[in-house]
Amino acid sequence: MSIREYTGDSPLQIGLLGFGTVGKAAEQMLEENRDWIERRAGGPLAIKRILVRHPGKHRDDARRLTVDPFEVLDDPDIRIVVEVMGGMDPARHYILEALRRGKTVITANKEVMSSCGQEIFRAGDVGRADIFFEASVCGGIPIIYALKESLAANRIRSLIGIVNGTTNYILSKMTHEGWDFAPALEDAQAKGYAEADPSADVEGHDAARKLAILASIAFGSRVTPNQVYTEGIERVTARDIQYARELGWSVKLLAIAKEGDEGLEVRVHPTFLPQDHPLAAVSDAFNAIYVDAEPLGEAMFYGRGAGGKPTASAILGDVVAAARNLRSGGRAVSCTCHRELSCRHMSEVSTGYYLRLAVFDRPGVLARVAQALGDQGVSLTSVLQKLTQGDQAELVLITHRAREKDVQAAVAELRQLAVVTGILNLIRIEGVV
Amino acid sequence: MSIREYTGDSPLQIGLLGFGTVGKAAEQMLEENRDWIERRAGGPLAIKRILVRHPGKHRDDARRLTVDPFEVLDDPDIRIVVEVMGGMDPARHYILEALRRGKTVITANKEVMSSCGQEIFRAGDVGRADIFFEASVCGGIPIIYALKESLAANRIRSLIGIVNGTTNYILSKMTHEGWDFAPALEDAQAKGYAEADPSADVEGHDAARKLAILASIAFGSRVTPNQVYTEGIERVTARDIQYARELGWSVKLLAIAKEGDEGLEVRVHPTFLPQDHPLAAVSDAFNAIYVDAEPLGEAMFYGRGAGGKPTASAILGDVVAAARNLRSGGRAVSCTCHRELSCRHMSEVSTGYYLRLAVFDRPGVLARVAQALGDQGVSLTSVLQKLTQGDQAELVLITHRAREKDVQAAVAELRQLAVVTGILNLIRIEGVV
Repeated sequence: MSIREYTGDSPLQIGLLGFGTVGKAAEQMLEENRDWIERRAGGPLAIKRILVRHPGKHRDDARRLTVDPFEVLDDPDIRIVVEVMGGMDPARHYILEALRRGKTVITANKEVMSSCGQEIFRAGDVGRADIFFEASVCGGIPIIYALKESLAANRIRSLIGIVNGTTNYILSKMTHEGWDFAPALEDAQAKGYAEADPSADVEGHDAARKLAILASIAFGSRVTPNQVYTEGIERVTARDIQYARELGWSVKLLAIAKEGDEGLEVRVHPTFLPQDHPLAAVSDAFNAIYVDAEPLGEAMFYGRGAGGKPTASAILGDVVAAARNLRSGGRAVSCTCHRELSCRHMSEVSTGYYLRLAVFDRPGVLARVAQALGDQGVSLTSVLQKLTQGDQAELVLITHRAREKDVQAAVAELRQLAVVTGILNLIRIEGVV
Repeated sequence: MSIREYTGDSPLQIGLLGFGTVGKAAEQMLEENRDWIERRAGGPLAIKRILVRHPGKHRDDARRLTVDPFEVLDDPDIRIVVEVMGGMDPARHYILEALRRGKTVITANKEVMSSCGQEIFRAGDVGRADIFFEASVCGGIPIIYALKESLAANRIRSLIGIVNGTTNYILSKMTHEGWDFAPALEDAQAKGYAEADPSADVEGHDAARKLAILASIAFGSRVTPNQVYTEGIERVTARDIQYARELGWSVKLLAIAKEGDEGLEVRVHPTFLPQDHPLAAVSDAFNAIYVDAEPLGEAMFYGRGAGGKPTASAILGDVVAAARNLRSGGRAVSCTCHRELSCRHMSEVSTGYYLRLAVFDRPGVLARVAQALGDQGVSLTSVLQKLTQGDQAELVLITHRAREKDVQAAVAELRQLAVVTGILNLIRIEGVV
């Protein structure tokens, strides 16, 4: 028996796994707003033990710190385990062990929740323990609860998110300062918005993990990150952004999930988005999730998606819900995946496309390019010839909605044309018919 | 004993009070998405009885309909009462009776919740029954839950909302079409966004009720609608909006609540808002609530704030939470008001001001006007002279942050000046220092 019955008004004991930026911010928030938080939680809360790697590095009561995870997991007084270590293992292992022992788990871990959600929920069922993970997606924005409960009666048609603050900051800088990707990334690193190794952010993997979690809940069907088509922002240039603006679009790294007759579409890629779309106004390191639901219609949730404080805010919101459940015997909504939808292969997805080509500036070039696209059933809504220099020019083509497979086939054909000297970029467009 | 113990997997019985647009939409949503909803609610749900005024008017199973509220309130099988009648009494009375009998109440009633919240929560305590009211503010936007739970660990610094769709639609039309108030109101009425008697919306009373509910939760201190300074949009003209745009502002009917050292500010009035503020992009009948919290920072919640379907979406979200609590023994967060902050009188509030005057176009006029303002300690950031016609002109003045009392005193002084022929408008500005 690794859980002691909770009785009366004694403090509800919490164990922290990890004591980095997020863990420290959570503890500080609890101290600063204790009366406020405990009132909503239904009684006192206490952080009894904290798992750290190097106890000497922390100025905390040494008796609270431990290097042994089982001093948290096996403590019968600890009812809530807050996992803020990050990364796959050992975090995953500790979460499973805590749940199997009947402890409520609150986690900010998107790696674990996106890839091992099923395993986690099963462990929760075994231990009859709740798992809360609001902090794992978009920090302080309460989107998990919104999808699980507030919008529970809706059918989600689509969910489109700006879920990575680093790339949104970089694209905002490129848009407003006219910078190219490399200096914008450097600026993001200097300001602490991007890590020294920025690949998880700029290549879209972080967004893909968050999308997997959000899509699983929104559509009631498990999606894992490897099912999400993922493309980063490294190839977006200041010039692409400039053309987009001229044509009425903003450029964002979007995480898109849609349910159609043939299953789910789940994809992360740079996207042209109409400038009057609510997501187009989401700048800098902010995140937002835009949902189109029946019967609710459109809704959007906006806020800071990362950083110690917003993440700690989400964790403490979950602590309040967890504490109330533990005191009253209530239970959280467990796994909401109840059907198995297939994810469409990217080649079958249809959307609009922006295609930027380097060509020889000769009569008949456009006819040949349009022919190559037309051969694959891809039709154009507009064509701009740009930047003619000597015998070179840039062609900017905007397509009607077309199938990815057909567009890729057309691009392969364009590569073979002697008049086309380069495929400069191909960016998908949201909202084209 | 008016509550029968809930056992096992039999349907949880619901009673509906009212069967208008919202009640019908809620029933339809439950029918259409029953599997989805019941999965999250933890088991089957059934609407057992519906209170209506004229049973003959409804094409429903006559045995479900009743004109006697006590056939709902006294039915021991009914565990959840959904109140969608609207208006103060008898709705208030029925809510109180249901709570005292231990039934969970879900209501969309902003009149009752804004004016009688304390009485309602006390009745809930007496009956040990939960009250849910997400649908009472901004329809489908889950702002009540966000403030009560998701942001529970935060201190809210300010909350600014566009909480009335009718006035936002009218102001959007005035902005985009250049219309004046009267034709924009007619258009809103023709489209069903405004009622035949639009006064509750256009005079700001609806927004004041919603703000009272939101501010009470955000600041943990009860605010009632009579404490909210309230001014409608009737006096806003197309010309004011045009000047605002030239100066970089949008015009919105804002519901503003802020905590300062000297208590709360709670006010509803037309406001100039910087065009790059996230709320400035909220158009047409949409609602949004923007929150600035410590440590979360800025967050915004956006969606449809009115209409049968968004409201029904909120009600069914509450039904899911209520049902899970009833099945598990869990309890919702009850009243969150735990301190008593005073509300500052409007005359003590400081903000920026836009002042439009009709003046004689003579030398020295501006000096006299500036002197009258300066006498009250009100200083100007910009002055525009507009529309000179004959010996008449318009002066547009923008002030630094100033105290309402001082601005009003200056306006009284301006009225006395022979060179000022009219005070055309006075509109507050958000974000001026």
